[in-house]
Amino acid sequence: MKEKIKLLEVFDNAYPNRNYTVIHTAPEFTSVCPKTGQPDFAAITIKYIPDKLCIELKSLKIYLNSYRNDGIYFESVTNKILDDLVQVCKPRYMIITADFNVRGGISSTVQAEFKDTNFNI
Amino acid sequence: MKEKIKLLEVFDNAYPNRNYTVIHTAPEFTSVCPKTGQPDFAAITIKYIPDKLCIELKSLKIYLNSYRNDGIYFESVTNKILDDLVQVCKPRYMIITADFNVRGGISSTVQAEFKDTNFNI
Amino acid sequence: MKEKIKLLEVFDNAYPNRNYTVIHTAPEFTSVCPKTGQPDFAAITIKYIPDKLCIELKSLKIYLNSYRNDGIYFESVTNKILDDLVQVCKPRYMIITADFNVRGGISSTVQAEFKDTNFNI
Amino acid sequence: MKEKIKLLEVFDNAYPNRNYTVIHTAPEFTSVCPKTGQPDFAAITIKYIPDKLCIELKSLKIYLNSYRNDGIYFESVTNKILDDLVQVCKPRYMIITADFNVRGGISSTVQAEFKDTNFNI
Amino acid sequence: MKEKIKLLEVFDNAYPNRNYTVIHTAPEFTSVCPKTGQPDFAAITIKYIPDKLCIELKSLKIYLNSYRNDGIYFESVTNKILDDLVQVCKPRYMIITADFNVRGGISSTVQAEFKDTNFNI
Amino acid sequence: MKEKIKLLEVFDNAYPNRNYTVIHTAPEFTSVCPKTGQPDFAAITIKYIPDKLCIELKSLKIYLNSYRNDGIYFESVTNKILDDLVQVCKPRYMIITADFNVRGGISSTVQAEFKDTNFNI
Amino acid sequence: MKEKIKLLEVFDNAYPNRNYTVIHTAPEFTSVCPKTGQPDFAAITIKYIPDKLCIELKSLKIYLNSYRNDGIYFESVTNKILDDLVQVCKPRYMIITADFNVRGGISSTVQAEFKDTNFNI
Amino acid sequence: MKEKIKLLEVFDNAYPNRNYTVIHTAPEFTSVCPKTGQPDFAAITIKYIPDKLCIELKSLKIYLNSYRNDGIYFESVTNKILDDLVQVCKPRYMIITADFNVRGGISSTVQAEFKDTNFNI
Amino acid sequence: MKEKIKLLEVFDNAYPNRNYTVIHTAPEFTSVCPKTGQPDFAAITIKYIPDKLCIELKSLKIYLNSYRNDGIYFESVTNKILDDLVQVCKPRYMIITADFNVRGGISSTVQAEFKDTNFNI
Amino acid sequence: MKEKIKLLEVFDNAYPNRNYTVIHTAPEFTSVCPKTGQPDFAAITIKYIPDKLCIELKSLKIYLNSYRNDGIYFESVTNKILDDLVQVCKPRYMIITADFNVRGGISSTVQAEFKDTNFNI
Repeated sequence: MKEKIKLLEVFDNAYPNRNYTVIHTAPEFTSVCPKTGQPDFAAITIKYIPDKLCIELKSLKIYLNSYRNDGIYFESVTNKILDDLVQVCKPRYMIITADFNVRGGISSTVQAEFKDTNFNI
Repeated sequence: MKEKIKLLEVFDNAYPNRNYTVIHTAPEFTSVCPKTGQPDFAAITIKYIPDKLCIELKSLKIYLNSYRNDGIYFESVTNKILDDLVQVCKPRYMIITADFNVRGGISSTVQAEFKDTNFNI
Repeated sequence: MKEKIKLLEVFDNAYPNRNYTVIHTAPEFTSVCPKTGQPDFAAITIKYIPDKLCIELKSLKIYLNSYRNDGIYFESVTNKILDDLVQVCKPRYMIITADFNVRGGISSTVQAEFKDTNFNI
Repeated sequence: MKEKIKLLEVFDNAYPNRNYTVIHTAPEFTSVCPKTGQPDFAAITIKYIPDKLCIELKSLKIYLNSYRNDGIYFESVTNKILDDLVQVCKPRYMIITADFNVRGGISSTVQAEFKDTNFNI
Repeated sequence: MKEKIKLLEVFDNAYPNRNYTVIHTAPEFTSVCPKTGQPDFAAITIKYIPDKLCIELKSLKIYLNSYRNDGIYFESVTNKILDDLVQVCKPRYMIITADFNVRGGISSTVQAEFKDTNFNI
Repeated sequence: MKEKIKLLEVFDNAYPNRNYTVIHTAPEFTSVCPKTGQPDFAAITIKYIPDKLCIELKSLKIYLNSYRNDGIYFESVTNKILDDLVQVCKPRYMIITADFNVRGGISSTVQAEFKDTNFNI
Repeated sequence: MKEKIKLLEVFDNAYPNRNYTVIHTAPEFTSVCPKTGQPDFAAITIKYIPDKLCIELKSLKIYLNSYRNDGIYFESVTNKILDDLVQVCKPRYMIITADFNVRGGISSTVQAEFKDTNFNI
Repeated sequence: MKEKIKLLEVFDNAYPNRNYTVIHTAPEFTSVCPKTGQPDFAAITIKYIPDKLCIELKSLKIYLNSYRNDGIYFESVTNKILDDLVQVCKPRYMIITADFNVRGGISSTVQAEFKDTNFNI
Repeated sequence: MKEKIKLLEVFDNAYPNRNYTVIHTAPEFTSVCPKTGQPDFAAITIKYIPDKLCIELKSLKIYLNSYRNDGIYFESVTNKILDDLVQVCKPRYMIITADFNVRGGISSTVQAEFKDTNFNI
Repeated sequence: MKEKIKLLEVFDNAYPNRNYTVIHTAPEFTSVCPKTGQPDFAAITIKYIPDKLCIELKSLKIYLNSYRNDGIYFESVTNKILDDLVQVCKPRYMIITADFNVRGGISSTVQAEFKDTNFNI
């Protein structure tokens, strides 16, 4: 799964002097439960304040689709997406929210956050 | 009811260096009113910031299902679930919200919170 | 489960000369999956045109609650509730709709109907 | 309760040559359970095709409010309102729908209909 | 109020060989209660099958706005709008639905219909 | 109305060492307008942090029902319910929200709050 | 328009020792666009903390209705309502929110606030 | 506008022996008002029973987008889309529904239908 | 894809003398676009009247999941699911509705139906 | 695109001594993707605290419509609208939120903010 990050592309932020927010909501995320082999489904929301780079939207779709047949836990996939996106676009701030569908009568949400301490936001 | 807690299982938090949030929503909780013997129904929401341990989802379902035929008050069941989960997974933060269905024309919500004072959250 | 039907009570229909409709919606039905032993949850809707007898509401609640710890399939419980209610209140028309919560990513509805052919409805 | 009907007032239908429909929805109906003495609450919907007379709206409000402290069953109050309104305004068609709030975890709807067989509607 | 009808304009139906439906929904209708002088508010829906003529939208707005300070009953205004529109655009079919806001805890809907018997719709 | 408060019952808070929140929502509150004699309807929400005592749910229903035929203004009934509940259960914090239905085209909400200054909440 | 303010009536606040909140929501506000002469529609929300005086509800309705045929801009009407209500009831705090319907594909909200600096709210 | 129809592509229906229904909903349709030059917006719904041919989805998008800068009336655009699609895919049945956004406080829907009389549907 | 059908299991209908309806809703269906290789998502609804056999729920889930990495068109997958389910459980009636997510700004629904002409339903 | 700003008109703020908020919501914004040439759709929300000038509503509509056939990225169009509006009306505070429709299964929101540091808001 390490090479997934290479799927992500970025472009130059045209407004680097302003703190502004971008939110991408991807309701069609699916991966596989590493225990049961059954598919999991989630809506992934990516909210960030770009610094020098923005995430290119089509590459983000391809990156998220690449999890389709991977076995990975709710907590891990959320943190890994955060790590990958932070590494690639080096934002001032980023928060990932993953809302997973009901399994065994229980729905789950995982939310992980990154703050660049050089910025006072 | 003391042995209920043994139903709960945990697994190692793979991202202990980050404060991130997990929310489990269980809309199918049911117990019995200790006064009338009639069934009560609630949606239980568990929101926490894991420290070293995460709650295993299937064991959580079994734990919550174990209340099915117990007689217990709204205020007590909410606080007891908090106590049990805190004891088992020792989170940095946890809040339990229990939304009970209408009884006698009145619906009720109970919400109880735990903070580990070692963490500044 | 045969004696469940004795829990149901009826009262005389005060308006037998008119075809009118009664709908009871019970969103707190729960039984147990005969295969897995896990709880099932459903909303049961009972719609009927009374002939000489109406179903007493409190006894209906007790009757539905009596399934709480029974192992029974979706299709069977819906048809059995219809059979029991028809036998007890002998309506001109009755339809039972049972909306079961998601299991394995799939929600299910079962709907069964009775018509007394002596009435042209 | 017999004199309730005297509270209802009517006015002449200005368009008697046309079959048109009037619907009044009164979501603030309340009466008292004859068994328990506890208040019941319902939304009453009155749908009718006037013949020579229309129901005056303010008198309808006063009529419905007059049930406030009466002990009466769901099935009876719905049929009685139909009988009273039909007697007073002699419509070509009328249907009363009463949606009662949850009692004992079950909500109930009663629906009763009148058709004047002189009209082919 | 007779000259209101002159506010309405029509244009030629470009597809007279086909029975098709046009619906205009005007949620900002207001007139005045002839009894109390207080304003009434309604959403007016006009659904029709044009024959040779269609209703011009801007003139419809001006026509509906012209009721703003008129005292007129719910039942009358609905039937009058139907009469006026039928007279002006001579449709194959038309139905007017007027949904009036709550007055004295009761909301009201009036619905009146026209069918040209030369058309078998 | 002074003796209403005697209808309220309390029970010992089993978790007095923790600040937790209880919310009771009663959508079926009704009283009478002191000016017009017409019924008023409201949803009453009671949110509090118990100290040594909790409000018993059935007695709360009876207490709220006791206003059914009292003439009392929106602002007064909200403040009076707060005064009565605070006097009886002596909470650390309590807020009452009363959402009244539309009257004369205007809906109203009144919200009153109590804080026990001995607690830093 | 200056004399509009005389339509407003107040009554003594029975609970002046407590900071509590009153919200009136009037979804049936209408005035006229000063440019086009076409009607405008808005929902007006008035939220305030009374000091010695409360706004009488029926007079508020008459006051708001008095704008029916006045030509006035969105920004002005919101600020004027705030000025008038503050002058008449001298609240500790007041905020007016006016949500105007779509015009030219754009809906607009104006929100204006008053704080009495003698109160620390 | 005549050459628009060339943008539409079809493919062979793989299940011609069965009457089945396809619905495409395109909420992003926009054209221009021929009178005012201002943009109009609509959701277009295409429901049809294919005979030998199905509409290719991407070409449908391009076809609908081609109206972007055309001046055309609500009634005309709906009927023209029906004519074009019928000519290209020769369905057993087709109905077009176009829901246009509010203009001058009024929203409009136009619905036009085609039936191939060789099929008894 | 032919062997998919072997994944489906059935069980005996315990109420064959009654025409009753079963609805399964599977909102987590996903397959792959045969043209672009990108994932498609749909909610599949299966409504049927069983004759001698019912569809086993867990096998239905496995059957639907088996499309996960298949390239197949909207129209084909809907008709194929109908063919497979009819062949396996031989129902008196069945209708499949597949609601596909937005692609290129257009969402699509396909609906296919089977009737056993031996039954008059 | 530089001359777009000339389309915007302002008028004098009649209440400059008060910090109040104006929100304009324009759900019919459309531009063109600079990469694919396909249309993009968004709801644009403009929230600001006027200083000496307010934005004239009709000119705002014309300004937003002028993007109809421009190729511009999500992030750029949001920041450019903020720059243009700030330059023209010199507000004390302004925030632009642009909610773009789903593209490739992902919806996007961009939010950019301006604060005049002379004002302590």
